[in-house]
Amino acid sequence: MTSDPDRTLDSLSTPCLLLDLPRMERNIRRMAEHIRGLGSSLRPHVKTHKCGEIAARALAEPGTSGITVSTLQEAEYFFEHGIRDILYAVGIAPNKLPRVAALMDRGCDLTIVLDDPVMARHIATTGENEGRRYRVMIELDTDGHRSGVDPASQSLLEIGHILHASPGSELVGVMAHAGESYFCDSGAAQLAMSRQERDRSVAAAERLRAAGVACPVVSVGSTPTALAADDLTGVTEVRAGVYVFFDLVMAGIGVCAHDDIAISVLTSVIGHQRETGRVITDAGWMAMSRDRGTARQETDYGYGLVRRSDGSALDALIVADANQEHGIVKTMEEGQPVPYEELPLGTLLRILPNHACATASEFDRYFVVDRGEVVAEWERTRGW
Amino acid sequence: MTSDPDRTLDSLSTPCLLLDLPRMERNIRRMAEHIRGLGSSLRPHVKTHKCGEIAARALAEPGTSGITVSTLQEAEYFFEHGIRDILYAVGIAPNKLPRVAALMDRGCDLTIVLDDPVMARHIATTGENEGRRYRVMIELDTDGHRSGVDPASQSLLEIGHILHASPGSELVGVMAHAGESYFCDSGAAQLAMSRQERDRSVAAAERLRAAGVACPVVSVGSTPTALAADDLTGVTEVRAGVYVFFDLVMAGIGVCAHDDIAISVLTSVIGHQRETGRVITDAGWMAMSRDRGTARQETDYGYGLVRRSDGSALDALIVADANQEHGIVKTMEEGQPVPYEELPLGTLLRILPNHACATASEFDRYFVVDRGEVVAEWERTRGW
Repeated sequence: MTSDPDRTLDSLSTPCLLLDLPRMERNIRRMAEHIRGLGSSLRPHVKTHKCGEIAARALAEPGTSGITVSTLQEAEYFFEHGIRDILYAVGIAPNKLPRVAALMDRGCDLTIVLDDPVMARHIATTGENEGRRYRVMIELDTDGHRSGVDPASQSLLEIGHILHASPGSELVGVMAHAGESYFCDSGAAQLAMSRQERDRSVAAAERLRAAGVACPVVSVGSTPTALAADDLTGVTEVRAGVYVFFDLVMAGIGVCAHDDIAISVLTSVIGHQRETGRVITDAGWMAMSRDRGTARQETDYGYGLVRRSDGSALDALIVADANQEHGIVKTMEEGQPVPYEELPLGTLLRILPNHACATASEFDRYFVVDRGEVVAEWERTRGW
Repeated sequence: MTSDPDRTLDSLSTPCLLLDLPRMERNIRRMAEHIRGLGSSLRPHVKTHKCGEIAARALAEPGTSGITVSTLQEAEYFFEHGIRDILYAVGIAPNKLPRVAALMDRGCDLTIVLDDPVMARHIATTGENEGRRYRVMIELDTDGHRSGVDPASQSLLEIGHILHASPGSELVGVMAHAGESYFCDSGAAQLAMSRQERDRSVAAAERLRAAGVACPVVSVGSTPTALAADDLTGVTEVRAGVYVFFDLVMAGIGVCAHDDIAISVLTSVIGHQRETGRVITDAGWMAMSRDRGTARQETDYGYGLVRRSDGSALDALIVADANQEHGIVKTMEEGQPVPYEELPLGTLLRILPNHACATASEFDRYFVVDRGEVVAEWERTRGW
């Protein structure tokens, strides 16, 4: 982290990634207070930001237990940044076990997940052969989103018994991710999804316990279900990631406002195409990512919503299309006048992204901004 | 570049990016021979690969004049890799001129582009004030794709006169990019687009010359129009980029075969969801990119076409959906049986990408493969 309180946005090369510090701090506080108030603990998912400084801020909140990661590279990076309690929440593959073992040997409390008896047997046997005890959670499917075992299935108990019986594995608990909540565009639907995620996860844990299999942890979460939750009885921890930044997709389902979105891409105007009502910028899809998450929502913001460089709202301009290094800005409604007089060549603009995880991943650093000044640069990691 | 001829794919951590060396060499040769045969020269666009080793191979072909870049960071990187003749083919903004000047001062023959009299005057004045001569090309719009000045417009001549008259600028020529060719899905349409790009560009150069403005270079190109071209009279150079790798989008419009695609993502099977006919892999959108280029083509391959790890065709499986670190593989036609017996947990697969530029950008290195063996690792650059 470097710090130079006199830097203004004009001094930055575009495109680059801005992080609004007061907004992020507010977002972090909001989620932590909410989960604390419901008597559960929070395990932030760091895949959104991949940044040691941001993880440290999220973990500074009371009631935060450790982190969730989506790759072993993230686990390695955050362990090097002093975080020991790490859940790798993507189903493990046999060829990844040596990296898991290496982290455990260095003192990392790394937990892996699986949803198949075949993999459970492989982990148990490998642990036995290595004289090691792998920490494992059983992934549940509570909403048909992607992965996980049916909480009501025989497979759940089969996996539980395998992991419970072997000295090569420790069953830490069950975990679910209600990813379908991203498509719930009302508070009522999010609440229903949150309760379903909770009920099915708690029921799975109760089934294991009734079968004599210890299951201490019940882990659930996604930003929409975490914020919608009104009762987390039986849930020991909640995972959420995108809440630190929020984005247009989250705003589109009503879990945040545009003014909560903490990251934006700073871009320069590089061309005017008056005949076609276009403004060309230097933030194409390489900067914004190809994520078009709002395309399936009520309001489609193209590749992002355009703001002035100070963050204030402009007439409704969006990045209607994008090439690799060209953003094509148009009015949201076809045929509206473009305020070219406000947008001379070289004008700086901020673009709010569809999906914070995707846009942030295009950059290697955050320019941390507080009231228009660059107060720090924070690096982020990437890769696998 | 490291070299270890004994490495097999099993030794790699997934997901990772494979580069099939014989295919890439064939693709490079094909384009170079074609453009040479038409009597023009080739200026490869390096934004696809962003790799010094690959640029060196493309430039080793006779009849290659220099490179095209899409960012100043690419210009800096490739200049450090020994390439002097560089065209920065994205419209310049005033705040980027100090980096342009710094490269020129180090001996780089860097050419910039613009399409507005306001920017032409700014460049000319800046060059005069600095005692420097900026090398400039006028960007043309030959197909309504994005940027550029109308070849038949008064603005073209106005820009030409400004740049020609000033000691602060040198008019190098005109350049066009027929980006709409990506949507031309027949050879006839690509040929027509190629001729239009040529005719309008040559006509623009002739208009400038007739007005007493020297215009030595006429630069055109895109992979589809370059390969379709049958007569390049008047064109002094052709730019193309994705041809070194090709991808499913290029195959979809018929300019290559699937077996010409030189990059793929190596992934591991991490889950089976038999009830829903899914196979889960560790190559999600962070590995494949969010690019869904084939969604608008006749055959939609989702986030990519699945092949065996040796590159051979499998029953028609595609990455039907993707989360950040999960690929969701299904049969291309709903309801077909999934060959689970061929896909045990841990199985390695190769995924052919929609868009090579986007997928490659998700990785920091190429694992260069020749007949199933990893023969080298090449780094790629990124950022702005």
